[in-house]
Amino acid sequence: MQYSIGIDIGGTNSVMGIVDKKGVILFEACIPTKDFPDINDFIEAAFIKLSPEINRLGIMHFKGIGIGAPNGNYYNGSIEFAPNLIWKGIIPLAKLFNEKFKLESFVTNDANAAAIGEMMYGAAKGMNDFIMVTLGTGVGSGFVANGKMIYGHDGFAGELGHTIAVRDGRICGCGRKGCLETYTSATGIVRTAHEFLENRTEESLLRHVTVLSSKDIYEAAVQQDKLALDIFDFTGKILGQSLADAVAITSPEAIILFGGLAQAGPYIFEPTKKYLEDNLLIIYKNKIKLLPSELKESDVAILGAAALVWN
Amino acid sequence: MQYSIGIDIGGTNSVMGIVDKKGVILFEACIPTKDFPDINDFIEAAFIKLSPEINRLGIMHFKGIGIGAPNGNYYNGSIEFAPNLIWKGIIPLAKLFNEKFKLESFVTNDANAAAIGEMMYGAAKGMNDFIMVTLGTGVGSGFVANGKMIYGHDGFAGELGHTIAVRDGRICGCGRKGCLETYTSATGIVRTAHEFLENRTEESLLRHVTVLSSKDIYEAAVQQDKLALDIFDFTGKILGQSLADAVAITSPEAIILFGGLAQAGPYIFEPTKKYLEDNLLIIYKNKIKLLPSELKESDVAILGAAALVWN
Repeated sequence: MQYSIGIDIGGTNSVMGIVDKKGVILFEACIPTKDFPDINDFIEAAFIKLSPEINRLGIMHFKGIGIGAPNGNYYNGSIEFAPNLIWKGIIPLAKLFNEKFKLESFVTNDANAAAIGEMMYGAAKGMNDFIMVTLGTGVGSGFVANGKMIYGHDGFAGELGHTIAVRDGRICGCGRKGCLETYTSATGIVRTAHEFLENRTEESLLRHVTVLSSKDIYEAAVQQDKLALDIFDFTGKILGQSLADAVAITSPEAIILFGGLAQAGPYIFEPTKKYLEDNLLIIYKNKIKLLPSELKESDVAILGAAALVWN
Repeated sequence: MQYSIGIDIGGTNSVMGIVDKKGVILFEACIPTKDFPDINDFIEAAFIKLSPEINRLGIMHFKGIGIGAPNGNYYNGSIEFAPNLIWKGIIPLAKLFNEKFKLESFVTNDANAAAIGEMMYGAAKGMNDFIMVTLGTGVGSGFVANGKMIYGHDGFAGELGHTIAVRDGRICGCGRKGCLETYTSATGIVRTAHEFLENRTEESLLRHVTVLSSKDIYEAAVQQDKLALDIFDFTGKILGQSLADAVAITSPEAIILFGGLAQAGPYIFEPTKKYLEDNLLIIYKNKIKLLPSELKESDVAILGAAALVWN
């Protein structure tokens, strides 16, 4: 049996695991990213967690290390200017892991890792052309065409969250206006809720929540709260419109939605599907599958990163 | 030496040629598409034009036939419901050519053929990731990632001309509103000119033209006509904005502009470049080359189609 190591680096915590080629996670660990302002200390901590297991299984059975990280660049194996990480500037992550573990190491961003995980073990198994969209705190994406991840010339392809959904729309953290992410992320839907609550007068369960979260909107929608349902409809409309444009570029077999907002199930899938179809060019109509991820939320980070090694 | 045959099928005329692997066109011919309402008669006419040359060079030196055609589908070798062609429904073009010529035959749409031509012989030589945009009567595009044409799941990828540039904007021939093509094609820029002439009062050379064409707008711009320059600025703005979104998806090394409107040179390239840069996410800024095609307008159709065979 061959194994790979999957590491998902987040701003707060990093999870890591040992995965076999079938996608079974044999071992899992977590370390608090923020506790290690020096990247070398972080790698040392990961090594201490993982090396007993690597030694137990035999290092010759290990194919490599895959790392999903914000602003991860596949081509040079670096993290570059990641705003949410404690490490600033350019961090040659693959090189550092390779030196410490003596295993070939690969880096990509979290959404690309999720796409590869989905292609190897999840809803995109056997697909050559699909789009993975992660609806989390931000909106990430990974595009696969001809069976291969599109990294682009510089390794930074797949920023669907920063295509412009509404020209001159909401201010985005990237410094521009109207990015998809400002509408269809977990934080985007909360911005929509605040706008709707401000601009409309009807009663809503959401008026009684002190600090609104996307979960509150979901729970109100489950109670058939009209305002909450309208918020999801609006969000699905913006997402469906943007996905229709993305379809016109890569003509995928499927679009897979993943992340916090995707867990709202029919409340987000139904309007998204409706507006996607409404906005598709006729040659694409009724062809594109809109699917939920088939990977467990808790596993996808590790599986996706580990799958980088086989891909 | 090995040869391929390139055929570009247009609504009015079809051009065809014999091309060597270096991109030298050895023989060229043209037949009027409209004179052949039966596709079999069209293929017979092409055979009569080409077979003496094929026999002269020796059929064993021929690698195949590449065909660029509106609505051409690479996967099944068909033309499907092309509105501007005399042949209706689904035409199994590759199969018919293959049977007649006894040569392996490939079909794709004209913009994809142009992209492949540019990759083999033109401005995209050696590039693995680029976007080809044809600004003609319509707006076509071909996306190349990882060195391969993106055909998508169903063979219809690359319809940048039908991404929405302006939500609820101009009516498009496709039945939707605001498609890029309605603004940045040769016909789109004429629509802009009519709007500007209607909504503004200033004097312009364009007020003295009876039937406006994109060429008139170009010629007025060359004369430094303010209105004509503003029309190009507006067109470049819409194009630059849409290209910035496309960059966020495939992160290309270059975008290559081709076709009638691209021949306006700096009048279209300068505003497009400016608004592209203005609208790019920071990680892409000052990285993306905006280039003119390096193929002769008269050669590209044949070269692009012929290149399909080697690709």
